[in-house]
Amino acid sequence: MIDFACKKFDLDEVIKCVLGLSKSEFRLLKFLSEQDTRFTTEELSKKLKLDKSTIQRSVKKLHERNLVTRSQINQTVGGYIFLYKIKNKENIKKIVNETLDNWVRTFEKRLSSW
Amino acid sequence: MIDFACKKFDLDEVIKCVLGLSKSEFRLLKFLSEQDTRFTTEELSKKLKLDKSTIQRSVKKLHERNLVTRSQINQTVGGYIFLYKIKNKENIKKIVNETLDNWVRTFEKRLSSW
Repeated sequence: MIDFACKKFDLDEVIKCVLGLSKSEFRLLKFLSEQDTRFTTEELSKKLKLDKSTIQRSVKKLHERNLVTRSQINQTVGGYIFLYKIKNKENIKKIVNETLDNWVRTFEKRLSSW
Repeated sequence: MIDFACKKFDLDEVIKCVLGLSKSEFRLLKFLSEQDTRFTTEELSKKLKLDKSTIQRSVKKLHERNLVTRSQINQTVGGYIFLYKIKNKENIKKIVNETLDNWVRTFEKRLSSW
């Protein structure tokens, strides 16, 4: 927990808030951020014990938000599957840092007219 | 109210927290920060509707913390009274700004090992 202005903050909660993610979207992002592999939605569903539709909605959102990469694998039996992987962890941290800085600037602006 | 990491902050609450003041100490500081005059504890007690002993404890703390100035006025009848005035509002803002920056640095340090 991090103390900020006499309130307690959990780092994960702050990142989730900055990125505007739901609980399951953030769980998924966090899981992928700790791995260096690509996963199918099936695998993610098993690993995270979340139903497949939740995983599918979540990876869609993370992909749209440019937080994960998606690669298409064509199957010999026909059709294809998608594999998901964290995109750029350093970039995610950069976004969080920039947002934190902006928030503090808001404080300082308000403080200047105190 | 200021939004920071999905929590709401009141600017006064943040300043009170940074300076480590109690509710009545902060009320007193805020009152003095809005005036350009010197006040006796008697006057402060009336203005803020706080009993004299609370005012006396509060000005003592604010004076020790270097937030208010105290000047001594000798009375013709003998004895003396103290007058209190806000010290340097810009300096208070500087302290708050620096503390906010330090808090954010703590976040960023923790984030770097995320």
